[in-house]
Amino acid sequence: MDDAEKAWKSIEGGVAAPKGFHAVGVQAGIKYKDKYDVALIFSQVQAQAAGVYTRNLVKAHPLYLTQRHLHDGLAQAIVINSGNANACVGEFGDQAALAMAQTAAMFLAVPPEDVLVASTGVIGVEMPLDRVLNGIRTASAELLGEVVKGIRGQDETAADGAHRAALAIMTTDTMVKEYAYELPCSQGGVIHLGGIAKGSGMIHPNMGTMLGFLTTDANLPAAELQRILREAVDESFNMVTVDGDTSTNDMVLLLANGTAGVALSGEDEANFEKMVKMMCVQLAQDIARDGEGASKFMEVLVVGAQTKEDARKIARSICGSSLVKAALFGEDANWGRILTAAGYAGAEFDPAKVDVLLGDLIVAQEGKGVMFSEEKAKEILQAKDVQISLNLHSGEEQATAWGCDLTHEYVTINGSYRT
Amino acid sequence: MDDAEKAWKSIEGGVAAPKGFHAVGVQAGIKYKDKYDVALIFSQVQAQAAGVYTRNLVKAHPLYLTQRHLHDGLAQAIVINSGNANACVGEFGDQAALAMAQTAAMFLAVPPEDVLVASTGVIGVEMPLDRVLNGIRTASAELLGEVVKGIRGQDETAADGAHRAALAIMTTDTMVKEYAYELPCSQGGVIHLGGIAKGSGMIHPNMGTMLGFLTTDANLPAAELQRILREAVDESFNMVTVDGDTSTNDMVLLLANGTAGVALSGEDEANFEKMVKMMCVQLAQDIARDGEGASKFMEVLVVGAQTKEDARKIARSICGSSLVKAALFGEDANWGRILTAAGYAGAEFDPAKVDVLLGDLIVAQEGKGVMFSEEKAKEILQAKDVQISLNLHSGEEQATAWGCDLTHEYVTINGSYRT
Repeated sequence: MDDAEKAWKSIEGGVAAPKGFHAVGVQAGIKYKDKYDVALIFSQVQAQAAGVYTRNLVKAHPLYLTQRHLHDGLAQAIVINSGNANACVGEFGDQAALAMAQTAAMFLAVPPEDVLVASTGVIGVEMPLDRVLNGIRTASAELLGEVVKGIRGQDETAADGAHRAALAIMTTDTMVKEYAYELPCSQGGVIHLGGIAKGSGMIHPNMGTMLGFLTTDANLPAAELQRILREAVDESFNMVTVDGDTSTNDMVLLLANGTAGVALSGEDEANFEKMVKMMCVQLAQDIARDGEGASKFMEVLVVGAQTKEDARKIARSICGSSLVKAALFGEDANWGRILTAAGYAGAEFDPAKVDVLLGDLIVAQEGKGVMFSEEKAKEILQAKDVQISLNLHSGEEQATAWGCDLTHEYVTINGSYRT
Repeated sequence: MDDAEKAWKSIEGGVAAPKGFHAVGVQAGIKYKDKYDVALIFSQVQAQAAGVYTRNLVKAHPLYLTQRHLHDGLAQAIVINSGNANACVGEFGDQAALAMAQTAAMFLAVPPEDVLVASTGVIGVEMPLDRVLNGIRTASAELLGEVVKGIRGQDETAADGAHRAALAIMTTDTMVKEYAYELPCSQGGVIHLGGIAKGSGMIHPNMGTMLGFLTTDANLPAAELQRILREAVDESFNMVTVDGDTSTNDMVLLLANGTAGVALSGEDEANFEKMVKMMCVQLAQDIARDGEGASKFMEVLVVGAQTKEDARKIARSICGSSLVKAALFGEDANWGRILTAAGYAGAEFDPAKVDVLLGDLIVAQEGKGVMFSEEKAKEILQAKDVQISLNLHSGEEQATAWGCDLTHEYVTINGSYRT
């Protein structure tokens, strides 16, 4: 989408940009010293809320709690820790997730049922609960300070708190993923949207170790939020693949507290929807760029598919192919591997009709190789961002997926993550 | 299976071990000098034949020809080249595959419809057909020499020819995959089975760049051979995964020429079936061991599944997980990744019931981590062969899959394969 087409603009403030939201991050020493590892996001009033979760059969303990607490479509705070996934540790894990919610609830004076919990990190190891709860206490105190400052009109530090929250949810991430937009409404007034995300390794269509938290001061019912979030996630986070593994812990949450006091007209709501989708795409692309050990970013565009699902399957299959990823790393114009990955995607198409492009260079037409300039191909593949396009010539549907190359660095990072 | 249980024994001779079969390999200079790259397998009499092919939607040109020529369940020769996949090159590819069959047919004096064709190598580049056909001519001449020597009782070189055929089908393989067995029958007489395979990179359940050729002098109808081969492939080649990519070129063929002149009783036929399965498993394990850049061999055993298909899905999912593979490389007892890969396999099970073992060391029980000796785990993971077992405690079915670790070497090899 061109900038000119956008009804909104980028602003500072991350998840604390929307009115009535505050966020902080603190260092609790869960896995490392001097690393922000506990984040707290808080709305001054109870908010409508929506959530999308991993499809992995093995789910981390906080997911069950969050799903339960979101059952009524209402929430007021999100507490997140990195450094430990709180997954596969049995009864202890359920109790730990509950303790995290209760501790935040007590300090923030909200019902425990309105606190959502997320964790990311190593699986199968009991979290150091004392440190986590201490972190939540510190974060709560700091957050209440932010609230007071906000009430006094001294909220110039709000963006700092939100930024520290963005830092606190990171694990092997090398860059902060944080955005905020402002949307002027047709009947006057402005609504805001903030978002942070984490993810680098183990990223896959069905949301491998990916966390995303969005806040808005728009006024929408939970059911509507849920639909908007679901659609946005399907076109963004679920189209990112780094290594094909789907995590036990992934979730994306969206809280809307209505504090902007703006009634959304039809057009505004359409813009709001687009804005949410755009922010999810931006966060998702950042995750692909930040793939563990990645040196290149890959965008795969599939057009001319019979169904949207076919286009998605093919785009994700290409992005997830170890051979395509290794060829990208080696800057090798191996379009045969691209077509091969399309072929095992489980989608319907006629291989004899497919065109393949690297950037704007046609490398295969109607399913077979064409003469192309190896020099031009090399130039395209040497760039940090590489676009691969397929036209299936079988229909009108399309989809885009994002990924990265497979590097020596990936092997090094993942050969020694746990220990 | 213990040696004592086996009704057959290993012998020399590869695919030329069964009576009436001959094989040769020659150097045609298709991609490299001094590399065997054209193989010919020939039966003196028309044989019953069965074939199993890749499930990739994008299929190489020789696959269509071979499927067509096998339609009647009869074949007499197989011609194979490495160095070029003859895939995705349009009309030229179909003509090239046909020319390969016709050339072999002319020199060997058999109908072209009784010649099967297989290719492996780079995709999307027209093969140097002159060189390939020259190679087939040379191979045919050499093979006829072998036949004559065989008739004269001077067939001591047969094993050499078969070995060169095994060499000729290799690409990035680092070791020859060649076996022969001899089965004494209950009513007297002996039947033989020979087999060769290639495969290292791009290996996946649905037979990524994997070729297998089996010969036997047993007497079985094509339909029965087809059933036996299908079942054997499902439990062997389709349970190997190196990098999750499924190739355009894969096939496994089985020819039975009946030359042993033995009538198979019920017990013999059961033994024959077991023998075919065992050879396929042995070849498949060799492929996993030879995974591109692999430093370790992984066997994943899943027991206690509700259905066979569930057990297979989970075993393959674990073997194919980049994160499990990288952890294996790093000798990191990261059982959380094992459970995670089981969780996204698309199979049904209760995560709270699962036990995970590394070798004989229990690392997780009832879905959660247990205290285990890191020292013992390290010792198990430092071995060249590592067994991972899961007990789902949900049923009676089981399956085994084979794979390898993900190494720096894999990235290097696949970053520069085409050029």
